[in-house]
Amino acid sequence: MPSARPDALAAWRLRSEPYYRPTAREVALFEHAWRHRLPVLLKGPTGCGKTRFVEYMAWRLGRPLITLACNEDMSAADLVGRWLLDAEGTRWHDGPLTLAVRHGAICYLDELVEARQDTTVVIHPLSDARRQLALDKRGELLHAHPDFQLVVSYNPHYHSSTKELKPSTRQRFAALAFDYPPPEVEAEIVAHEAGLDSTLAMRLTELARRTRALKDRGLEEGASTRMLVYAGLLIRDGADAREACHMTLSRALTDDPDLGAALHALVDASFP
Amino acid sequence: MPSARPDALAAWRLRSEPYYRPTAREVALFEHAWRHRLPVLLKGPTGCGKTRFVEYMAWRLGRPLITLACNEDMSAADLVGRWLLDAEGTRWHDGPLTLAVRHGAICYLDELVEARQDTTVVIHPLSDARRQLALDKRGELLHAHPDFQLVVSYNPHYHSSTKELKPSTRQRFAALAFDYPPPEVEAEIVAHEAGLDSTLAMRLTELARRTRALKDRGLEEGASTRMLVYAGLLIRDGADAREACHMTLSRALTDDPDLGAALHALVDASFP
Amino acid sequence: MPSARPDALAAWRLRSEPYYRPTAREVALFEHAWRHRLPVLLKGPTGCGKTRFVEYMAWRLGRPLITLACNEDMSAADLVGRWLLDAEGTRWHDGPLTLAVRHGAICYLDELVEARQDTTVVIHPLSDARRQLALDKRGELLHAHPDFQLVVSYNPHYHSSTKELKPSTRQRFAALAFDYPPPEVEAEIVAHEAGLDSTLAMRLTELARRTRALKDRGLEEGASTRMLVYAGLLIRDGADAREACHMTLSRALTDDPDLGAALHALVDASFP
Amino acid sequence: MPSARPDALAAWRLRSEPYYRPTAREVALFEHAWRHRLPVLLKGPTGCGKTRFVEYMAWRLGRPLITLACNEDMSAADLVGRWLLDAEGTRWHDGPLTLAVRHGAICYLDELVEARQDTTVVIHPLSDARRQLALDKRGELLHAHPDFQLVVSYNPHYHSSTKELKPSTRQRFAALAFDYPPPEVEAEIVAHEAGLDSTLAMRLTELARRTRALKDRGLEEGASTRMLVYAGLLIRDGADAREACHMTLSRALTDDPDLGAALHALVDASFP
Amino acid sequence: MPSARPDALAAWRLRSEPYYRPTAREVALFEHAWRHRLPVLLKGPTGCGKTRFVEYMAWRLGRPLITLACNEDMSAADLVGRWLLDAEGTRWHDGPLTLAVRHGAICYLDELVEARQDTTVVIHPLSDARRQLALDKRGELLHAHPDFQLVVSYNPHYHSSTKELKPSTRQRFAALAFDYPPPEVEAEIVAHEAGLDSTLAMRLTELARRTRALKDRGLEEGASTRMLVYAGLLIRDGADAREACHMTLSRALTDDPDLGAALHALVDASFP
Amino acid sequence: MPSARPDALAAWRLRSEPYYRPTAREVALFEHAWRHRLPVLLKGPTGCGKTRFVEYMAWRLGRPLITLACNEDMSAADLVGRWLLDAEGTRWHDGPLTLAVRHGAICYLDELVEARQDTTVVIHPLSDARRQLALDKRGELLHAHPDFQLVVSYNPHYHSSTKELKPSTRQRFAALAFDYPPPEVEAEIVAHEAGLDSTLAMRLTELARRTRALKDRGLEEGASTRMLVYAGLLIRDGADAREACHMTLSRALTDDPDLGAALHALVDASFP
Repeated sequence: MPSARPDALAAWRLRSEPYYRPTAREVALFEHAWRHRLPVLLKGPTGCGKTRFVEYMAWRLGRPLITLACNEDMSAADLVGRWLLDAEGTRWHDGPLTLAVRHGAICYLDELVEARQDTTVVIHPLSDARRQLALDKRGELLHAHPDFQLVVSYNPHYHSSTKELKPSTRQRFAALAFDYPPPEVEAEIVAHEAGLDSTLAMRLTELARRTRALKDRGLEEGASTRMLVYAGLLIRDGADAREACHMTLSRALTDDPDLGAALHALVDASFP
Repeated sequence: MPSARPDALAAWRLRSEPYYRPTAREVALFEHAWRHRLPVLLKGPTGCGKTRFVEYMAWRLGRPLITLACNEDMSAADLVGRWLLDAEGTRWHDGPLTLAVRHGAICYLDELVEARQDTTVVIHPLSDARRQLALDKRGELLHAHPDFQLVVSYNPHYHSSTKELKPSTRQRFAALAFDYPPPEVEAEIVAHEAGLDSTLAMRLTELARRTRALKDRGLEEGASTRMLVYAGLLIRDGADAREACHMTLSRALTDDPDLGAALHALVDASFP
Repeated sequence: MPSARPDALAAWRLRSEPYYRPTAREVALFEHAWRHRLPVLLKGPTGCGKTRFVEYMAWRLGRPLITLACNEDMSAADLVGRWLLDAEGTRWHDGPLTLAVRHGAICYLDELVEARQDTTVVIHPLSDARRQLALDKRGELLHAHPDFQLVVSYNPHYHSSTKELKPSTRQRFAALAFDYPPPEVEAEIVAHEAGLDSTLAMRLTELARRTRALKDRGLEEGASTRMLVYAGLLIRDGADAREACHMTLSRALTDDPDLGAALHALVDASFP
Repeated sequence: MPSARPDALAAWRLRSEPYYRPTAREVALFEHAWRHRLPVLLKGPTGCGKTRFVEYMAWRLGRPLITLACNEDMSAADLVGRWLLDAEGTRWHDGPLTLAVRHGAICYLDELVEARQDTTVVIHPLSDARRQLALDKRGELLHAHPDFQLVVSYNPHYHSSTKELKPSTRQRFAALAFDYPPPEVEAEIVAHEAGLDSTLAMRLTELARRTRALKDRGLEEGASTRMLVYAGLLIRDGADAREACHMTLSRALTDDPDLGAALHALVDASFP
Repeated sequence: MPSARPDALAAWRLRSEPYYRPTAREVALFEHAWRHRLPVLLKGPTGCGKTRFVEYMAWRLGRPLITLACNEDMSAADLVGRWLLDAEGTRWHDGPLTLAVRHGAICYLDELVEARQDTTVVIHPLSDARRQLALDKRGELLHAHPDFQLVVSYNPHYHSSTKELKPSTRQRFAALAFDYPPPEVEAEIVAHEAGLDSTLAMRLTELARRTRALKDRGLEEGASTRMLVYAGLLIRDGADAREACHMTLSRALTDDPDLGAALHALVDASFP
Repeated sequence: MPSARPDALAAWRLRSEPYYRPTAREVALFEHAWRHRLPVLLKGPTGCGKTRFVEYMAWRLGRPLITLACNEDMSAADLVGRWLLDAEGTRWHDGPLTLAVRHGAICYLDELVEARQDTTVVIHPLSDARRQLALDKRGELLHAHPDFQLVVSYNPHYHSSTKELKPSTRQRFAALAFDYPPPEVEAEIVAHEAGLDSTLAMRLTELARRTRALKDRGLEEGASTRMLVYAGLLIRDGADAREACHMTLSRALTDDPDLGAALHALVDASFP
């Protein structure tokens, strides 16, 4: 089957180097784990750069990256594959996880905690010393390609206690914790991604910092780095800075009138 | 596949300019977002013109518009596509979202908050810097057409706290807030759409304003602009104004006897 | 496709004029709505004549009538259509709603409130200015036939607060309220339908009125006009009047011993 | 289709006259309803003879009888029919209800209250003046055969308040109430069915009467007529009367130790 | 179809006489029921010999035995049969219940209370005077083979009040109650099955009796006869008696530390 | 069918001897059970070596090992097999359990308590004297190969009382209890698996012991042996010992800030 198509993973190779600005020793630690192909768990809030980090590491390590956003309606067959009916009868179709295991990609399961149980247990024999994937419906026990690595992420901040990774799953991963970058680093990222000068980028970063403080007053999450980039793009395009921030920050973050007014006031104070 | 049929999106091109009466700077702000292809979120009550606005922007920007009303029973396959069995075996059928992504349409997901999780996460890689759609069942990673844009809407007023957009979804959008238009603008719309003179249109608008005030007394939503147009059409057709308003406003808004009587009184007071 | 069969709606054309006895101005108001093809909502209790009214209007307006009884297990595909497998591969099969939209029938969705969400949102673009039906699985955006009209019904009396039409659905309809007819009219209907003389019909009507008063004592619904017709048919056929009323009214209305005894007493008092 | 097979209902014609012992005027009342083809509802406890009554009436009226035991997992397609795949493509297969409607049988839906909503609403247009069955998946609107009649049953005694027939369903039926027969009649039935002499049959009937009195002490249902026939058969076969009654009555009626001991004592007292 | 294969039930005929040690008059009572083909219900705790009894009776009566373990995920089609797709189209496949009904086997439904409703109602017309099985999907009404008998079992001890056999089901069966055998009989069974001498077998039986007394202290069930046989086999194989009992009794019966210690002490006291 | 392919279980034979360090008499006890093919239940916490033990025993006994991770979405068909459509019609495909039963493998059901009911009851006739597997959909009653053995595991520590093995399942197994190995043994394992010197391995083992003591303060599970191996691999690869332990222990074990800080302090104290 590998010989049938020259590069089964061509679609998942990164075309260009993703922009990533390290904030600590996360690159080196990931590389230690990669050398032993230890499964890696990325923890951290929405929009702080977990996905970009995996893209960057895949580029750096020269491996294709297959990403799957976990959800309650994703079945094990969606991961592993299924039989499809064809003119000559049924034909086996490798799912994305099987593609990664068979041909040696990094497989990134985003928000693993949202997955159903059958999805979660499928990765157990892949994330211990066995490194196996059972394709039961095909009668095949697949031993992982030497370059296969499993990476998963989740956001520990807004999951209820009923929806947590089970210890039997957690204990299979080496974990890296992510958070929003320090102000200067975040400003550097915003300036780079939105094409802003550093003063304006710093002002947006400072505004974000204040919205994050509203979590104590009930805001589910503060502004992410991605939202600052959105605001910056609109401002550079000629939009009024206040209107741009209302559009990308205040209204997107909440529907609550009180929190909305508080965010509105923070925006107005930042761009008087 | 694009070459197979000359214009895969022909059915979704608007045939004529939709009537839309701007109420603030929403057209300019949408165009800022469009230039960077930022995903846009429209918030606002039922029947205030969100759908008409998207139709108008699609016409103005010269893009086809593919609309999908989200609901709990819509699966990811309904969005993305599926394999269909054919005389020559299975054939891939692009879903409406895939059509928009592949050929460059505006894709409008109405009431996104009603969608199941698998639908919601499908749009995540389309609504950040990646602009990708994974057709896992086809083994294809689709990079969005340069003219693809994602627009979603929802009505923050009658969703319970258990049914809200998750922060990880919200933070991917620039948001515009809609409400019923100011009285003169609403009267202008009603006069245009129902073919009424402005006095009668203004009287209907005034009646709507009063029904909206009943929200404090338990009415779920007041009369929408669309309902005023319905009333206007019946009146212009020769129906008694009171009967027309009872038919299109009082009875349609509630089954509660007390609220029904209150609405009845408002109608009678408006058309004594 | 219209040319393939000369009259795709032949099965749904009414064969003879349905008997309908108007009680107010509902015929004229429906005709006003029909002229603008406004969607119409019929509210009212079980067995008071909503279905018969729609049949009568369809006959009067010369349109075929496609009726669908909504329920929790009806899927959008049951309404819109599906691909069926054939000797030459898959073949599209229009669902009943699509038939009505494509060829111009009145489509009557009985007890819309019982429908699942995916059914309900399917009719949204059909019930506003767009008058469109998206056949996503076929890649077709169907514009409604000029003679298509949507009519829905529901019974506001026995739905819990959790099962209500959402404002975003209600606001798309002009509404007519139905109730049991006034005594003389109801007696006229019973006499006509069961072939009774007017004295006996009036006595049954009077009995029904008393059963309806039992709603204050816990009876879910009183006797409907249809039940009086049943009783009348049995009596005309030679059954004892009391036995006929016990069979068609008392036992059919409740299993509660106290309410059953009360109904029994009402019957005995009516036919001493 | 009727001409394709000479008697599509041959399998459902009764082969011999079922034994039925009337207890009141139920035969005459059913015949009144039959003459107008009114739908009939049979109410009463388990094993009191409802099914036997319908069999008897079908025999007496010379109509085939199609019986369906309703349950939560029975779908509308199980009633109405479905497309089956064949060597020459798909072929429509009439469900049992459709068979009855098309060719004119009595269709008996046992324990209708256990059915899902989609099953229940399917019978609505069959149980009012329309007498129609919509085969939506076939695009056919079937008008009932003149000899079709609908009969349903349910046991009002052990249904919770959440599982009741809705008024919109109940009001479509003329109802007959059943209960265990009076002692002499029940003894006559037991003697006939089990081949016992009347003294022994009367003793079993008396025992049953006492078990039914235990409902006040928490027994869900007392012994049915059918259970007495079972006991009689074992006794006639040579089993010890006490052992036979313990086997067919005490142990079958309850798992509760106290109620079991009470039943045990009743049996021992009956056969000292 | 019977002629197509000479013995459709060959796989379900017992190959050798099962070892069964009667404890009361259950064999004779079962034979009384068999002669009238009355459905039989076996009640009793886990591992006390219900399954072995049915195997023995099937051997004794010379009938094949088809056993089905009921569960919530078993559908009516799993019992009755289904259409399978073949090279020449669809072909009907009798389910195990249909096989038994058509060709005359004893059908044993183990733990009937675990079955879904559609499974339970399927057996209703088989367990009264009708002895019919409706193969609705095939349009066949099957009359049971004269040698067909229905046997069901359940364990009344650990079912919640919400999961009980409904009266309408219970009343169709003659019931036999099972329990663990008296000590001498149980020792005889253990000695025979594990090849132990009677002293050791008696000691294990005595230990079991003590574990069953722990039900008063919260143990869900005490040691079954089967567990004693397991312990005996290990001991005869050379395992230390204490270790063998810990492995087959203490650890298998509970995870609760206190109950586990109590069981441990009982084992140690039995084999000092 | 066995002759069709020379070794149907080739994929499941172990390629090399798995490293396993016994901690008590578990190997001898398993061999006693194996000689009588008694089903074995392994109880114990996550990552303590249950899976490795089964692999070792399969190697030692020279049997192939088929492992299945149980979960709520695994159906009986996933275990037993199903009909697949082929160019020549349908073809039966043995599921993994059937493969093991037919050809004589050890079948290991990991975390049996997570399985659905239909999965659990499927193994009942395999785990008593019958050693049968009913392939109902194929009409085959399979008698187990003499070398077939069933092994199941579960972790009694974090299951709620609603999710437990039922007595009727538990009583079919001989049980072995597992726990983390004693310190010297665990250090020996870590040294072997991660290639560490024994001092460092002992220090990691000591750290693990302290994390396990945190269960009293709310930590769901302490560090497993597997986690120590992960930490050891990173340290041997040159990572800072503290960073390696934070990555593989502190962050992987909890998201709780207080417990995280406690773990952090334990790590820092171990590697000052």
